[in-house]
Amino acid sequence: MADLSSVSGVPIATIKFYLREGILPLGDLTRPNQAVYGAAHVERLRLTRALTTTGGLSVAAVKRVLTAIDSDDPLAEVFEVAQQTVSVEHDGAEIRDEAWERVDALTRGWRVSPGNPGRVEAARILETLASLRIPLSDAWTSDYADAALAAAKADLDEIELRTDRDSRAETVVVGTVLGDALFAALRRAAQEHETSGRFAPRAGDDE
Amino acid sequence: MADLSSVSGVPIATIKFYLREGILPLGDLTRPNQAVYGAAHVERLRLTRALTTTGGLSVAAVKRVLTAIDSDDPLAEVFEVAQQTVSVEHDGAEIRDEAWERVDALTRGWRVSPGNPGRVEAARILETLASLRIPLSDAWTSDYADAALAAAKADLDEIELRTDRDSRAETVVVGTVLGDALFAALRRAAQEHETSGRFAPRAGDDE
Repeated sequence: MADLSSVSGVPIATIKFYLREGILPLGDLTRPNQAVYGAAHVERLRLTRALTTTGGLSVAAVKRVLTAIDSDDPLAEVFEVAQQTVSVEHDGAEIRDEAWERVDALTRGWRVSPGNPGRVEAARILETLASLRIPLSDAWTSDYADAALAAAKADLDEIELRTDRDSRAETVVVGTVLGDALFAALRRAAQEHETSGRFAPRAGDDE
Repeated sequence: MADLSSVSGVPIATIKFYLREGILPLGDLTRPNQAVYGAAHVERLRLTRALTTTGGLSVAAVKRVLTAIDSDDPLAEVFEVAQQTVSVEHDGAEIRDEAWERVDALTRGWRVSPGNPGRVEAARILETLASLRIPLSDAWTSDYADAALAAAKADLDEIELRTDRDSRAETVVVGTVLGDALFAALRRAAQEHETSGRFAPRAGDDE
């Protein structure tokens, strides 16, 4: 276990916690107080750390998605588990027809089931936006829908690069959880770029 | 205050809390125990609810962005406050040169300062992705960079629609906070659309 800790960079106490929680499979016992851990343990530890630290998932949420990866469930179900895991809990506030109509207009031509957590959350956000003094324009939300569709295409392209079911399932989870974080991070960098180009042009800039 | 509560839909106890925290300006006292609240109070309450409930900000974070909106600070500084508010706290883990090189390649041609919170967070995510058994491809991260740039352009287009500084500042904050949520929600809906098109084609579908 000391070796596993040093190779993975995860503290022993954390490894013990993951073993207790069933997130990390037990090692092969060689003696009553000694177990052997292999490459699969190191990989599982790294995936767990990626999902908790960078992805911000709780340990309970990690357990749910790992169980889905390890299952024989079809990919569509792994997607559903991953989506539910990263979706915001709905507070039950009423969403008016206008917001539903706006989300339908925004996703026209998409095959999306009415209860898709993303669709419901988008309607809730559109409802919120409509209540503000300065509602954001249809052009803005429409550009966001285009960007989201491009990202979803990239997600599926990435999954199709994998050939076996387990690699695909892992890609579904990692892409769903870390994709939000990567997009948000890159958007902030891009905002600085766009701001500097539009609001603070410097003399001599020629690009 | 009872009227303010019924118009805004925010409970009286919450309104009192916001008044104490300085998030909501005090009403004009007409009698020692009676104050008049106007349209500005209703708007401020709605904005606060949008940022906390839908945007997931803490009350302390809302106070920071509202202070930035109410200040005379230039728009670039409001952007900075909004970006810092929604950025993940860095855990201090080392980011290797390889991840920095990858983020630089990904944002080639963008004018971004080295300490931009989005740039640092992107490097950290790329570092995490590289540690996994199935690293996500350059094509995937590059499609995400394109989508993020398109969203940032939409953000700035939206800001340029406004003519006065306060509307622009409010748009910066709302767009930064709710933009992440809207994109994430729409990506999940788009994933279902893309999945159904690629992995579960139904007989008779001709689109």
